[in-house]
This record gives sequence, C-alpha cells and structure tokens, in this order.
Amino acid sequence: MAELPIETYLPGLSIDCVIFGFHEMELKVLLLNMKNQEEWALPGGFIQKDQDVDIEANRILENRTGLKNIFLQQFHLFGDLTRNKAGHAKKLVETKIISDDLRPWFEQRFLSIGYYALVEYSKVQVPTPDFTSDSCEWCSLNNLPKLIMDHQQIIDRAHQVLKKELNYQPIGLNLLPQQFTMSEIQTLYETVLGKTLDRRNFRRKILSYDILVATNKQRKGGTHRAPMLYEFDEEKYTQAIQEGLKSLF
Amino acid sequence: MAELPIETYLPGLSIDCVIFGFHEMELKVLLLNMKNQEEWALPGGFIQKDQDVDIEANRILENRTGLKNIFLQQFHLFGDLTRNKAGHAKKLVETKIISDDLRPWFEQRFLSIGYYALVEYSKVQVPTPDFTSDSCEWCSLNNLPKLIMDHQQIIDRAHQVLKKELNYQPIGLNLLPQQFTMSEIQTLYETVLGKTLDRRNFRRKILSYDILVATNKQRKGGTHRAPMLYEFDEEKYTQAIQEGLKSLF
Repeated sequence: MAELPIETYLPGLSIDCVIFGFHEMELKVLLLNMKNQEEWALPGGFIQKDQDVDIEANRILENRTGLKNIFLQQFHLFGDLTRNKAGHAKKLVETKIISDDLRPWFEQRFLSIGYYALVEYSKVQVPTPDFTSDSCEWCSLNNLPKLIMDHQQIIDRAHQVLKKELNYQPIGLNLLPQQFTMSEIQTLYETVLGKTLDRRNFRRKILSYDILVATNKQRKGGTHRAPMLYEFDEEKYTQAIQEGLKSLF
Repeated sequence: MAELPIETYLPGLSIDCVIFGFHEMELKVLLLNMKNQEEWALPGGFIQKDQDVDIEANRILENRTGLKNIFLQQFHLFGDLTRNKAGHAKKLVETKIISDDLRPWFEQRFLSIGYYALVEYSKVQVPTPDFTSDSCEWCSLNNLPKLIMDHQQIIDRAHQVLKKELNYQPIGLNLLPQQFTMSEIQTLYETVLGKTLDRRNFRRKILSYDILVATNKQRKGGTHRAPMLYEFDEEKYTQAIQEGLKSLF
C-alpha cells in the first residue's frame, strides 16, 4: 500500500496527463488500469509545495509510467464541484491502493490541471505502471474503457484542444517518417481530427504553411504512379512552432 | 480594512482576470490602482470552497469592478514558484489594505488561474473599484503602469492567446458597429495583433471564413469611392464559434 508524503503536497490540487500516442496512423491514449478495479485512469498525481507546476507534471508522468522527456502542454484547469465523486476515496481504500488514514486527503475537493502531449508511441519507452495500477497501456481513442471520475471529459477536452492547435501550429515532426507522401501527412491530420479531408484543399493548405520541402524522390513499389516524397524544413518548422504558421494572421 | 472570510476559500489558489477593452480601434486592459500604492493589479480574488471555479471567476470580476455579464475564458494556470513575491503580503499590511492577521494567508504560495475577455468597453458599466483599490481604469496595452507580482506576464500571456485564437475563432460581433467596412474589421485585427496586415490577403482570408455578408449599402461622406458595408451573418458566426471557422481543417 502507498505511503504518500501528503504533507509535502499542495492540498486539493492534482495533475492529470493525457498522452496521445500516434503509431501507424492510429491514435491512442495512455491509461493505467487501477489495481483490483475494472476502471482505468489517466496518469496523474500531486504537486510538491516547493516545485513549479510544469516541472511536477513531468515528474508525475515519469513516476507513474516510466515515460521520460515528453513535452507536456498545460491545456485546462478542471474546477467544477461535480468532478469529485464521493465513492472514489472509498474505493481506493477498499481495493487497498491507499491506507485508511489517507482517505481524508482523497476525499477533499480536488481541482485538476490537465496536460497533454502527442508522441510517436513506438519511440517512447515501454510504459511501466506504479503502485496504483496493474498495467499501463495504450488504449484506442475510439474505444476507451470505463474511466474514473471525470477522466473521460478530460480526454475529450484535450482532444478538442489538439484539433484546434492543428490550425495554428505545425505537427508531424517525430510522428511521420523522415520522408513521407502527401497522402501520409493527410492521414496524420485525418487521424487526429477523426474525419476525412478533401485532398486538394488539404494539399493547398499544408503547402501554404511553407514548412514542407518536396524532395525529388518518389515512393517506390506502388502499381500506380509513384507519389512524390516530402520532408519537413526543420528550420522553418521550428520557427513556425515559435512564431505561428505563415498562413496565419 | 478588509475582513476576508478566508476559511471559506480554497487555500493557495487565486483567479486573475485580464479584461481587454476595445473602443475606437484602441486596445486597453482593465486595472485596479492599489490603495496607497503606486502599483496596479489585475482584478482578482479567491475561490469559494463550495463553488465551481468558472462561476467564481465571474463573481470575482463583478465584486472587484462592478462589471457584469462578461464572458470570461480560462486560458492558463500560473504555477511557478517564483511568482510569489515575499514583499507582497508585507506591503498589503503596511498600506492597510489587509489586517495583520490576514498576513499568513497572503504569504502562502499561490497558484493563479488566468481568465480573459475581450469587450467593447464603452458598452460595459463604468467599473467601480473595491476595498483594495483607489480606482479602476482602462489602461493602454502599449503603456501599462507598474504591476504587482507577475501580472505583467499574465497580461502578456493572455494577449498571446488572444492573438492565436483569432486564427480559429471569429471575433468582431459586439466590438464593431452593426455595419462596418472591410477596412474597419481589418483595423480590429491589426489592433489586437499589434501589426499591420496586407489588405488583399486579409480580405481573401476573412471572406473565406464565410461569416460576413456584403450589404448593398456604402459608407457615405467620403471624398473617394465610398466603401462597401458588411455585417456578420449571426447564425454562421455563432456556428463558427461552436464548430470552428470554415477555412479550418
């Protein structure tokens, strides 16, 4: 059972991390299967009194999953009264995840700070669960298991934000192979957005961002006309992350 | 001096509101001039234990400024250790804004949840300050007075977010007159962005959003060719707020 140094944490505040994993054109979320329970949870934890919140988010993610060096972005503070479910602390005690004297800590009102990241999941370490959970797994976004508290809403909100950010921030570096076809980058966008896009509009739009370079190579092996390969102009890509996309206001 | 019911508030958490005011093509921020001090502060306050955070943000804004019915959007939680300045609580006591027994409350580490809004400032009530401040004024964004703690950073961050949001969310309704010229809406964007935009690109882009209707009227009185007047298609505008702009992915 866990011995949490609760006196070292800020009371009533937690962090929850939504780690989207992208691999072979599929979008997944990293979840922990709570010990002795059928419910799943986002990797999360508490904030040390003497540390910056952003630094704590990374520490929590590493402690609970073994994942290192993932760039987390804060996206929302969840502060509704209804998010605290009375039964949650009770269940943690019953399933022996926490001892009974930690119950008051878990029963207090909690606000949670949401962080998210989008990673190529075959490139990160195999996640390992901590004391609260039996396993740590990538679950398909379209077919999530039952989640504790408001974790489903936290995931939905993170996904919404990610979809919005596609419109002012480049994505793809480290998610796609070094060289890729127009159709592959379109599939990346379609996977994140969960909808199909018009081929010609997509092409026009993504080229207007001025972050792609057409190589003079073609993808080999197809029966049809071999498609052109592109790569990111890493300098322009980095600049666009910092200053916004060229096509923006 | 203030009698704050601190036992009814969540400890270590505050809310700060960045209210951008737009009027006659100028962008301002609403600030409170701290009593007996030269420093200014964002309208802010604490969160009641038995209330949703979003609801508290609106209550705090109304209590501290008299402003009602402003749609506030949460944009960031400020959680760095460095944001708490040792001298802040001391100064509040010295200037008799708070009594000495409230000092420990103000000396604890505070995280602050940032909210922002963009309003036509001539349309809101004249703001009235609360017990902490001598006056409540609209200050020009380009020439802000000295601010307490990290409030300058909070404003900078809110402005950054606002500039990003222009790219996936319509603005202008309630900020521009019912009917306006292409040049007027361009000036709105330029004012918020703090830079000039190319006239032809702006026109192409804003029309691609499919939220404007060209009326068959022209602005009268000019010596040159009278410019065409536009208005928002309110149905499409509302839809774009909810579902994103047409030109987005």
